[in-house]
Amino acid sequence: MLEEQRMTCTALLLGGSGYIGTAFQEFFRRERISYRNLRRQEVDYTNAAKLRTVLQETKPELVINAAGYTGQFNVDDCEAHKTDCLLANTILPGIIREVCENLQQPWAHISSGCIFTGTHADGSGFTETDEPNFTFRKNNCSFYSGTKAFGEELLQNADRCYVWRLRIPFHHVDHPRNYLTKMLRYERLLDTRQSLTYLPEFVEAAWNCWQRRLPFGTYHMTNPGSITTREVVELIHRSGVCKKEFIFFASEKEFMQLAAKTPRSNCILDTGKLQRAGIAMTEVHASVTRALANWKTL
Amino acid sequence: MLEEQRMTCTALLLGGSGYIGTAFQEFFRRERISYRNLRRQEVDYTNAAKLRTVLQETKPELVINAAGYTGQFNVDDCEAHKTDCLLANTILPGIIREVCENLQQPWAHISSGCIFTGTHADGSGFTETDEPNFTFRKNNCSFYSGTKAFGEELLQNADRCYVWRLRIPFHHVDHPRNYLTKMLRYERLLDTRQSLTYLPEFVEAAWNCWQRRLPFGTYHMTNPGSITTREVVELIHRSGVCKKEFIFFASEKEFMQLAAKTPRSNCILDTGKLQRAGIAMTEVHASVTRALANWKTL
Repeated sequence: MLEEQRMTCTALLLGGSGYIGTAFQEFFRRERISYRNLRRQEVDYTNAAKLRTVLQETKPELVINAAGYTGQFNVDDCEAHKTDCLLANTILPGIIREVCENLQQPWAHISSGCIFTGTHADGSGFTETDEPNFTFRKNNCSFYSGTKAFGEELLQNADRCYVWRLRIPFHHVDHPRNYLTKMLRYERLLDTRQSLTYLPEFVEAAWNCWQRRLPFGTYHMTNPGSITTREVVELIHRSGVCKKEFIFFASEKEFMQLAAKTPRSNCILDTGKLQRAGIAMTEVHASVTRALANWKTL
Repeated sequence: MLEEQRMTCTALLLGGSGYIGTAFQEFFRRERISYRNLRRQEVDYTNAAKLRTVLQETKPELVINAAGYTGQFNVDDCEAHKTDCLLANTILPGIIREVCENLQQPWAHISSGCIFTGTHADGSGFTETDEPNFTFRKNNCSFYSGTKAFGEELLQNADRCYVWRLRIPFHHVDHPRNYLTKMLRYERLLDTRQSLTYLPEFVEAAWNCWQRRLPFGTYHMTNPGSITTREVVELIHRSGVCKKEFIFFASEKEFMQLAAKTPRSNCILDTGKLQRAGIAMTEVHASVTRALANWKTL
């Protein structure tokens, strides 16, 4: 009942070979949940008719759209690949919505907290009812964030649809997309306060939303709380994973001048909705500590 | 050497069966210019690899992208079909650019003046160097205008690419997409001052840009000058095409309340660049008069 079974499956993954999708695959294998990873080389699921046929033949309980364009190294790459970025992050969710609504197919879209910047005036995080403020319409965003926010705009009032927002995924396994790996490899760091997402917890919590049949809609799926880059450095030092002296940019201005082509979203998400729904994720400092305690290089 | 010849052709039309594309087909037939109308049912040209293959086998002098999503009756329909609208008006030009640049293939994109609203403070029209001001980034636009402006954003600094902006096409043949037909059929009219485009002149002027090898880039291709709705009504009355009393909305506010779901772009384009390049289009009142003098219902 595992991957590649053509007939019915519990979960159908789009973008299952990406960083987030791979974590879903690992979770499904471990939990012995049947799934199919629909590869785009196999079926061009950006084509509505083809996607529809697959859904009709596969009859999954839930479709999970983990496909997205995040840039090869970081979001700066999205500025040079606008068409691909817009197609993957905006149009594709629109197409999936159309097909799924027509078939009354439950589905989930992996979105990002990067459609917000900052916090509320009192320092509290953004909730699911706050309007994204790092968007094309605000004209203040990276192309990446713009396309993610626009993707959500195409999902407004969608039927039977979860929007799961994560932010800055990290993991206990070294990987170029892993935030901790990036921290260890970057020459210099920028000190900011952020919400982060421990990927193995994210996929479990996400699947729990469906298992428990939580109402469809948007959920902030970051680890509760927030953490600064300097705090992460301290946890890295304490863990023994790396002892080097980390160098910081003097300011965001210097960072933008020397290292970045496009503005970054620094933001805090409020995770109360998920917690109130009874799905717990570990507090962010504790989850970073746990990932570092289990650190694996491949 | 006319349509549907598979081998080489002078012009390859995308969206050739639409309102603008049909006018190109008529022009090419009349002028005995060989062309191919690539239908999307025949080749899905939103797929970069498929488009590339067709261009390699057809080797056109110029590709003309007349494909676009304008809504079934008017731009209000675009609000309900955001994915299709974005795919046709934004992503498709991005894909064509990628394929054409890679093959060093000259091409032209039909864009719209609807990415502007109003005039300069002194009442003069917008030039090709003015930044569009009716866009997602300004957060003041219809979804249609937003996608057209965004399509142009994906074409910034494109190689070997014309961007031909027209506005509110009209024609001497009655047709649901013809501005004069719409005027005759609408219950009530809104009095605004606009730039308009007489479609048969547009396609001829557009082809002349290529024939004369004008530098690639953006051109405003409306009939010079501007005209108010009341002036068009007067020309309709004088022409004898229709004698009825036209009723006007009291204000744009009333129009928005009673007849429209999304804001309209009312704007004037400066056509000096095209004129200075030696391509003449008739002054707008004269061209409306001419269309009405030759009015044909089918």
